[in-house]
Order: sequence, then C-alpha cells, then structure tokens
Amino acid sequence: MLKEAIYHRPKNNYAYAYDESTLHIRLRTKKDDAESVSLIHGDPYDWGDGSWNYDTKQMSKSGSDELFDYWFVEIEPKFRRLRYGFELKNKKDVLVYTEKGFYKSIPNDDTAYFFTFPFINKIDIFEAPSWVKDTVWYQIFPERFANGDTKNDPPGTLEWGSTDPTPTNFFGGDFEGVIQHIDHLVDLGITGIYFTPIFKAYSNHKYDTIDYMEIDPQFGDKETFKRLVEACHKNGIKVMLDAVFNHSGYYFPQFQDVLENQEKSKFKDWFHLKEFPVVTEPKPNYDAFAFVSAMPKLNTENPEVKDYLLEVGRYWVREFNIDGWRLDVANEVDHQFWREFRKAVKEIKQDVYILGEIWHDSMPWLQGDQFDAVMNYPFTTGAVNFFAKDTINAVEFKNIISNVMHSYPNNVNEVAFNLLDSHDTPRILTICNDNKEKLKLLYVFQLSFTGTPCIYYGDEIGMTGGPDPGCRKCMEWNTDAQDRDLFEHIKKLLQLRKENSTFTANDINFIVSDTTTNHIVYTKKDRDHETIFILNNSDKDIEVEVPLYMKGKNVIDLWTGELFTPNSDVIKQHLSPYGFKIFQVAK
Amino acid sequence: MLKEAIYHRPKNNYAYAYDESTLHIRLRTKKDDAESVSLIHGDPYDWGDGSWNYDTKQMSKSGSDELFDYWFVEIEPKFRRLRYGFELKNKKDVLVYTEKGFYKSIPNDDTAYFFTFPFINKIDIFEAPSWVKDTVWYQIFPERFANGDTKNDPPGTLEWGSTDPTPTNFFGGDFEGVIQHIDHLVDLGITGIYFTPIFKAYSNHKYDTIDYMEIDPQFGDKETFKRLVEACHKNGIKVMLDAVFNHSGYYFPQFQDVLENQEKSKFKDWFHLKEFPVVTEPKPNYDAFAFVSAMPKLNTENPEVKDYLLEVGRYWVREFNIDGWRLDVANEVDHQFWREFRKAVKEIKQDVYILGEIWHDSMPWLQGDQFDAVMNYPFTTGAVNFFAKDTINAVEFKNIISNVMHSYPNNVNEVAFNLLDSHDTPRILTICNDNKEKLKLLYVFQLSFTGTPCIYYGDEIGMTGGPDPGCRKCMEWNTDAQDRDLFEHIKKLLQLRKENSTFTANDINFIVSDTTTNHIVYTKKDRDHETIFILNNSDKDIEVEVPLYMKGKNVIDLWTGELFTPNSDVIKQHLSPYGFKIFQVAK
Repeated sequence: MLKEAIYHRPKNNYAYAYDESTLHIRLRTKKDDAESVSLIHGDPYDWGDGSWNYDTKQMSKSGSDELFDYWFVEIEPKFRRLRYGFELKNKKDVLVYTEKGFYKSIPNDDTAYFFTFPFINKIDIFEAPSWVKDTVWYQIFPERFANGDTKNDPPGTLEWGSTDPTPTNFFGGDFEGVIQHIDHLVDLGITGIYFTPIFKAYSNHKYDTIDYMEIDPQFGDKETFKRLVEACHKNGIKVMLDAVFNHSGYYFPQFQDVLENQEKSKFKDWFHLKEFPVVTEPKPNYDAFAFVSAMPKLNTENPEVKDYLLEVGRYWVREFNIDGWRLDVANEVDHQFWREFRKAVKEIKQDVYILGEIWHDSMPWLQGDQFDAVMNYPFTTGAVNFFAKDTINAVEFKNIISNVMHSYPNNVNEVAFNLLDSHDTPRILTICNDNKEKLKLLYVFQLSFTGTPCIYYGDEIGMTGGPDPGCRKCMEWNTDAQDRDLFEHIKKLLQLRKENSTFTANDINFIVSDTTTNHIVYTKKDRDHETIFILNNSDKDIEVEVPLYMKGKNVIDLWTGELFTPNSDVIKQHLSPYGFKIFQVAK
Repeated sequence: MLKEAIYHRPKNNYAYAYDESTLHIRLRTKKDDAESVSLIHGDPYDWGDGSWNYDTKQMSKSGSDELFDYWFVEIEPKFRRLRYGFELKNKKDVLVYTEKGFYKSIPNDDTAYFFTFPFINKIDIFEAPSWVKDTVWYQIFPERFANGDTKNDPPGTLEWGSTDPTPTNFFGGDFEGVIQHIDHLVDLGITGIYFTPIFKAYSNHKYDTIDYMEIDPQFGDKETFKRLVEACHKNGIKVMLDAVFNHSGYYFPQFQDVLENQEKSKFKDWFHLKEFPVVTEPKPNYDAFAFVSAMPKLNTENPEVKDYLLEVGRYWVREFNIDGWRLDVANEVDHQFWREFRKAVKEIKQDVYILGEIWHDSMPWLQGDQFDAVMNYPFTTGAVNFFAKDTINAVEFKNIISNVMHSYPNNVNEVAFNLLDSHDTPRILTICNDNKEKLKLLYVFQLSFTGTPCIYYGDEIGMTGGPDPGCRKCMEWNTDAQDRDLFEHIKKLLQLRKENSTFTANDINFIVSDTTTNHIVYTKKDRDHETIFILNNSDKDIEVEVPLYMKGKNVIDLWTGELFTPNSDVIKQHLSPYGFKIFQVAK
C-alpha cells in the first residue's frame, strides 16, 4: 500500500466529537489501494496483564476523490476517551498505521505509538443550532427587493425597475416591502432570510457602515425592523443579518475623526494606521479591505473597538431577536475576536447561527469555538462548474463534492451554507446561459444536498443579470413577467426536502458518474430511508441502466408520485435532456 | 512526482505567523522526489489587468524523515496577507499545487484556486515568553531533594536516603532544603526549576490535591515558599509549579462532601458523576484519571469549578510571582478552560510560561490561544531510543527528530520542553544501562538541541533508579558519592549553550547519519554562526571523514578550545567510543 498517501491527524475533519458520546474517525488512503480498513481502539488506560486491551471495528469507505479513498467509522467510547490506530489490508499487504508511523502488526509494547482522542469534553464539541440544518435561506439585498414605503426613499430614488442598476443608483427597497411580500416567501417555502447589510451606510449595498447601531433610514426605522422580524417569525422564517466587522465605511465618524484630527484623534487606535498624516489618496496608508481606501480595516484587537462591536453583536440579538449573524470577510479578523463574539451573542440567545464568509478551506474557524458554518464556496464552484458552466465532467464533479464533504466533520457539513450565487456574482440563470432546464437540474442537486441551501432573491422567478451591478436588479413583482414554472419547480423541491429527511442527510453516495452521458446517480441515506437521484446533465435524451437495488419493492417516484415495482436490481431509465428521477422505497 | 504524498494545509505547522510580519510556509513531498520547490505568492487583492500579480520564491529543503521531504520558506507579505501556491520541479515533471489540487502550469483565471493566509493578526500569533528558549530546567520532586527543616517533617519521616523509596514513605524534603542548595543549581548552570506539586495533598508525590490554595505543610509555609521564589529569582532561576487541574485528590473536601452527602452535596456538579450513590469501589462510578478512584475528574465546564481553578492559577502568580505553570494531564481538560486559563494568568504576568503535559502530537493546543509548549515526549523517545537504549539506528533517529521538528511551527520548537526522564520514568542513567559515556553523549545532543531542556534532579550527579518509585530516591548530597565528572560534563555543556546561540537555534541539519558506524553529524545554524556536532554513538573507536566545509578557516574545537585550519572541506576525524566533537569557525 502506498504509505505516503495515508493520512490522519486528530481534532479536525479526521477525528472529532460528533456529539457528547460519539467520535467520528476518518482515514485517507490512496485511491483503490486498501481493500479494508479497521479501527484498532480501546480505552487509553485499559491495561490487562501489562498490555493494552484493544478491539477492532470495520471502517467503511465513505467516498473517494481524484487521488484518495476516505474511510469512516463511528464509535462510542465508554469512558469518553479513545486510543486508536488503523489496520489496513489488501491482497498483498497488511499494514498498521499509528501516530508514530507504520508497523507490520499491531505494536503492543508501548501505547504511545497510537493516536488519542484524549477526552470528549462537551463544551469543545462543534454544535450548531439544531434548526439550521432544516432551514432554507433566501438572500435579500434590501435596496432591491421591494419598495413598500416611498416616504423613506432616499433623494434621487428611481422608479422601481425603470432602469438597470448601477454602482450608485437607488430604487427605494425597504423593510416594509419585505413585510408586504412575506406571502411570496412562505409560498416558495423558504424558512430563513439572510439580509445583506441594513445598518446606516453611504452606498446602496451598505457594506460601508456609518453606524452599526442604527438602521439605514432608507429601509425604515427600528420599529419597522422589529415588525419585520416578528412577521418573519410568525411565518416560521428566521432572520440573519450581515456583520461587517473587518472594516468600517469611510463615513464612520471614528474614521472621519482620524482624518480630521490625525495623531490627536482619540480613535487613532481604532484602525491600523501606518503613518501620519493619514491619507486616502492615491493609495491608503493604512490597512483597508483589499486596497479600498473607503473601507479602513478595524483594529479588532483594541479593547474599545472590541467592546463596541461585541455590543453591536449582542444588541441586535437582544433587542430585535434576530436569529443569525453572517460575518463579512470573516477570515481577516482575528480568531480571538470571533471566540469572544461567539460567547457574547450565544449568551444572549443560545441558538443564534454564526456564519462566516470564507472562500477557502475553513477548518480553523469550525472547531466549535468560533463559527457554526461558512459560506460553502467550494460546493458552489463544484456545482456551478458541472451543472451551469459545463467546465467539468461527472467524475470531476463527484471528486470535488467528495473532497468538500471530507474536508469537514459531518456536523459541520450538516449546516454548511450552500449558495449558488449572490450579490457578488452573476445570477445563476445567467451563469446557466439562460438555460432554465440546466438551472432546474442544478436546483435538484442543491436542494437534495446536506447543509442549508440559499436562494438569491429573484432567482426563483427567473431573474437574470451579470456581475455586480447586473445581479442587483429590482425584484420583478409583475407575476406575468415572473417565471412561475421555475418558481413551482423550486417550491416542489422544497416541499420534498421538507417531507423527506434523506434530502438533508449527510450520507451521500455517488453510484454512477458517467463521463460519456454526463449523468450521475447518487443516493442519500438516513436511519430509515434511502433516496436515489438520477440526474441527466446533458442536452440529450439518454437511456441508462441504473443500479437501483430495489427489486421487488414498492418504489415511489417522488417527483410524479407514481408507484412501481422493479423486477430487477438494475433498471432501464429514459431521461430527457436535463431530466431527473427521484426514487424511494414507499413508506 | 507523487501527488498523493504532497501535503499542505494552512494555519498549523505548515503555515503560520512566526512574528508580526513574517509567515513561515512549509510543504511536504515524497522523499527524494521533487528537486526544487518555489512558493508562488502575492497579495490576495493585487490585480493588474484582470489577472493576479504573483511572484515566486525558492523554498529550501529543511529536512526529511522516512517517507517525506519538507520544504520551507520565510516570507514577509507587505500587507500582512498572502495568497500562495507551490511550483514543484524535477527532471521529469513540473507541477503546480494549490488548495484546489494540481495543475500543469500556474492557473491565473481564478485566485480561488490558491491557498491563503488571510491576515497576520498580532493577537493570534503563537508567542511564548522570550526568556523560555534560553532557559535550562531542573525538575525537583520536593519530597526527595533536600530536608532543610526537620521541624516540618511529616509523622514517620525516615532518615534521608536510609532506605529505598516506596509509593508511600516520606523523607522530609522541603523548600528550606531547596533554598539551602541553590548554590548547587547555580553552579550547574540551570536557570529554571520545575517543581512537581507542592500543594496540600495526601501522598508523597502530591498529585492528589486536597487544597490548591495551600502549601503542603511538610514543605514549609507560604512565607518559606515566598523566600524560595525570591532566592531563585535573585540567582536568575525561574520557578514553575505543577497544576493538577484534570482531577482532584480523594481528600479534596468538595469530593469528600459528595461522598458524604451524595445527591444533596452542593459539590455534586464539581465532578463527572454518573449515578448515585457515588461509590469508589470496586470501580469508581464517576469519571476519574485513568481508573484511579482516588483521582476524581474535575468538571472544568462548571463555572464554579472554573472560577476556583482560574483563581488558583492567578493566585500563585500574583502572590508569589511564580514564572510558569506545568499542566498535568493537560489534554483531557477542555480547550475552553485552557483558553480562559491563559487569559487569566497572562493578565497577571504577561510572560508566564504555560507548559502542557501531552504525550502526543499537540498542535491543537499550540495555536497561540492555549499553551506555550508541551512536554516533548516524541523528542524524548527518539533521543532515548537512539542514545540510551540502542533500539533505533542513526537514520531512524534522524527521521524521528526531523519528524518532530516538522510537526510544529519553529516558534513552538524553540520553547519545547525537552526532557530525558522524570519522576514517571526510570532515571536516564539506568535507561543507559549505567553506561555513563552513553549518557554524556546523550547530554551533548539534548543540550545542543533547540527548545528548553530539563534535567531531573540528581541525574547530574549520576543517580540511578528504575520506574516509580525507584526513580524518586533521596538526592545524594555527599559529594564523595556524587559523580562529579558527570556534573562537570553537564556544567560545561550548559556553559557552551549559554555562550553559543547556535545551540538553542532551531535550524538543525543532519549531514551524516551512518548506520554502519552509528555516528551522526549535524549542524546548528543561526544568523551569524554555524556549529558542527560529530557524535559517535558506538562503543568502538571510529575514524570517519566529516564534510566540514570549513576549509582554510580558523576553526575552534569548542570542547577543548583548540584552534585548527582544515586544509580540505572534508576532514578525517578520530572519535573514541561515545566520543564527540563540536567545531565552529572562530569568531
């Protein structure tokens, strides 16, 4: 076996506490190399006659990517602590792998060879709010969702949808508009709204905060926001706000004070200034988000800044009962700040969801002490490249999704924020080259995947648009101009997701990834059920043989409601271009 | 190149902030596979005409173990943030490695491919007290070091050294004894004392605490301890105490209260009880250290317990000005507790050293938020197996040491607590089979290695003893019975270590690991100097050719003080059994 490919390290995605009594252990091996892997395990202190008492437990192959197989086992150590190693076998080899390296047989002269998970301490367990994994988000860019109250329109507000959005124009979207259209969201079936920033700011996107303690007047006032949250909650919809704590806006009074008073400003330690005088042109001589002088980086190590921002975190939870915080540019802020932030907001409301914006591998933020989830861009890239852009084939897609799944613990995957697009990217229908059938198929995948999916406002009724500002058009409220067929497609998928726990289950298994036909078959499993998904990601009719393994059973086609009884484990299926099937043994 | 062997993941030993402006980046490749590796790097936001502006920087091979080569580069990103990947070359292949996988050339259509170190936030940097890396520790088991005050002897105290130690006998060692013998420690050259527990307890080893706020009366009182710390400080010696926070002792009043009052005890949530009545026999029905009923595990998640123990941590620093805490069974206590512990004690005294007892890979505790160091048992095992036990050969030894070094960031290695033995193991001379020459050679290695070495009391004068209780004999104070030659050997090494900064430097390079002769040659480097160590770990005279690369230079033999000028880059050297040479270009 290829020793160089074998990898394990405790206390991350390879070994973690799933809950108070359960450990999950994974091992990576070279693809198609080991034929079976067992966990060698025992209590660290369980000594018989001078030698360690261990047991073995078979691991299962939980997935593969381009280079590797991943093995998985769940174990409940009686005394909440585990010493362990791995025994790998194939036709040629037997290999024992421990923290100290490789052995031909299980070493038993010194337990120091082995890996340990020293103790399952409850407080260290990664534990996201339980409601998140059943939530479907809807992202609202408030300036563009609905203008429900023209009295708060900013000067120069344009007529709704009268022209294309630009980086600086305003259309008057507000909270009243959201309240008035909650029925649309309820009808669609979403159960959470993620609002991009709502605090007082200069721009139309509000990422350049002026006052974190105030609602931007163009959206309404605090009373309106309170009514909005209440209306959402009454309709079973959670509310998540956007916390832009990495940097402030140019008109943040503390930054203005620095520009005005320079060395003498009492806020000079609120930022990362490098020299005086502080200048914004031609380049900022202070740390900023990217090189944007209008977004000076906040010094979150300064206790004054920290107190201020933590109070912001607490305030909107305490006073307005919001349910989540989405953290902008989360990976550039210090870990210590996020640890304190978690403590602060969870003390107010234990089940607040904390979602970090990180575009990369995010394990260091997902250890239980900082975030509940990150925006799952690796998922986005894989799904979009396969279904929307056709830049990768079925096997590459499967490899990427497997890799994402194995980069994190299962309890992290269960609450990952799975988006397809946002205010920062072209709209997903536009990425699909306006091919609605492709998009429908992509939704089948997104909405049958574990985690907490998000739909960007207007995508559900077929809105299009290129990169910012194109993707920020006014919501189309004229039902005749809405794509109701697409709406019904998503609505039906959300209904199926709600009724079938296999959709949200973490256990995905790619049965077929066919690079010729470009069709995939995967199963989703939970304790009681298994659902099989057959997706034809091609513009051709295909006739394929599907290994269904449901011979003689009453099988329901979840999409049509039709029942049938396969007379073979492998069944022939015809799929139209971008067609799909969802089968399950009838309950 | 073997893709399966290539490994990198940010924010651990593979990518970390060394200081406020410097990042260290490492890459792992299959041994002898890549011939050169470059870091592809740039600011994450530095876009020219739509494509990312990157640069490349050559990495150097920093070491190898059995299976892998490790590559290293230091980089100072101007804006404290880095986007990066790797370009690997050998005669056959060019390969680019990024977070998203492998490419044939540098992809430049999407920076999301690359790894990032998002921002160097000062507060997140691992930063141990600066004094630690120059400290040499001396471990004292207080009951057995010296009896300086017979008035505080516990009942039944035996005459000093009159008999062998047993698990339960007492010899009356105390603080006054340490004060009286500080000259011995100063003479030897140590600069820190690590005391095993000194708090009120039942046993002779005091790991079964009764009262964490009181000195055990057999050692003296708080006034004596204060005098001891002051005497140490006056002599340039730091003082580290042992914090046994994983579990209390049987006679801890809170646990006694539980045994007496059961469900009604107000301390029932101080422990991990599983059922009532709480029983200690035949097996404890509560969580304990190992299965030792007399050591009930403390519930460090309970705010009352946490407050109590954090105050213990603060109290001895605040009131007695101690310099370090060694944390017993540190990996079984929750991470959250240790994060708060660090904050609590560093608020009292910023440069307190926090040392965890962990026998395994300890990266999760060494991220800057918990410990400053762990007891470096993987180092111990490697060094002892090669020099003392002869169970591994020169190449295996080099592989283990390289592996240890690459398991942690350099700033972690610089303060690792490198012990050879302790009150928990046989004495090192006994492990050396009473072969003093072997031990002397082992000291050359230990005391020329990076980190903070520790000498167990009495080892320096040739004391012997098997496992506990054999290793806990009374210190030999009769100078005629002391091995003064061994003492002088260690003293001289400590003097050299003090005078030559290469001894403490992290940069070690194994030039020769000869499995035939069993000799090794390694260099230690810092900014200004390079020292070369030649160690003959065999019972034979050997004549070896050493690649010294100091041709024509004035070279000093640091051990003898002799000067010479090699007329070749490779010089012939004769080494007696277990002999050694230490050369350096003269200053």
